[in-house]
Amino acid sequence: MTSTPSTSTPPQGRPSGLDPEIAARLKRSADGLVPAIAQQYDTGEVLMLGWMDDEALHRTLTTGRCTYWSRSRGEYWVKGDTSGHFQHVKSVALDCDADTVLVKVDQVGAACHTGARTCFDADILTVLEGAESDVQPLDQ
Amino acid sequence: MTSTPSTSTPPQGRPSGLDPEIAARLKRSADGLVPAIAQQYDTGEVLMLGWMDDEALHRTLTTGRCTYWSRSRGEYWVKGDTSGHFQHVKSVALDCDADTVLVKVDQVGAACHTGARTCFDADILTVLEGAESDVQPLDQ
Repeated sequence: MTSTPSTSTPPQGRPSGLDPEIAARLKRSADGLVPAIAQQYDTGEVLMLGWMDDEALHRTLTTGRCTYWSRSRGEYWVKGDTSGHFQHVKSVALDCDADTVLVKVDQVGAACHTGARTCFDADILTVLEGAESDVQPLDQ
Repeated sequence: MTSTPSTSTPPQGRPSGLDPEIAARLKRSADGLVPAIAQQYDTGEVLMLGWMDDEALHRTLTTGRCTYWSRSRGEYWVKGDTSGHFQHVKSVALDCDADTVLVKVDQVGAACHTGARTCFDADILTVLEGAESDVQPLDQ
């Protein structure tokens, strides 16, 4: 044992301070990431889905602010650092397969970069109503 | 124009009846899938995350039952076909990037194969409290 914080290296080669016990259980996609669902803790709104690697999860657990890995920019991304629309972390859970993260947050302002409260507000698809017993799906 | 339902072939080569306008907008991962969040429509509980290809989304929109692509089994999977724990579809939305689906459902029984109501009930991670202004994350 030393007093130096341990770091480990997940599959993508980025060093991480994530608890090794959690890191050992986490099931990542081929690019070393897991999907992370952000949910408003009191209203239950699903705000957005981002991606986390080990270090992003570690920062989310230890800094109080939801942190993602930006696939497009290839860097860590503290939600709100640019916009001020921080996500203050209330709780974090893994799912039963340890391949998805659910973060309950208190969202400041809009979660979506469009200015909408959530990223799912604008693009509602049409569901065929009353079709449950009528439609035969294509063969597999 | 013909009276035959059109099908298209998404990147993974599986034929799909998905509306071509939606298919043209959908941004899939390299394996042709998008993450799909299932949320209980009235309580707001996040139940689980599954994966959909074009045809799974098409079936979800047109059959009234939430349908996923099983990555482990390599086949379509109507949630509840084995367990009876169907997800009756209430609404479907794409996010602002068209790379994630949110399905609001009425979940019959347990969403999780463990018997838990949701897949996020059992594995709560410890969040470091009061750390928001104190912790310096690792350098990028």
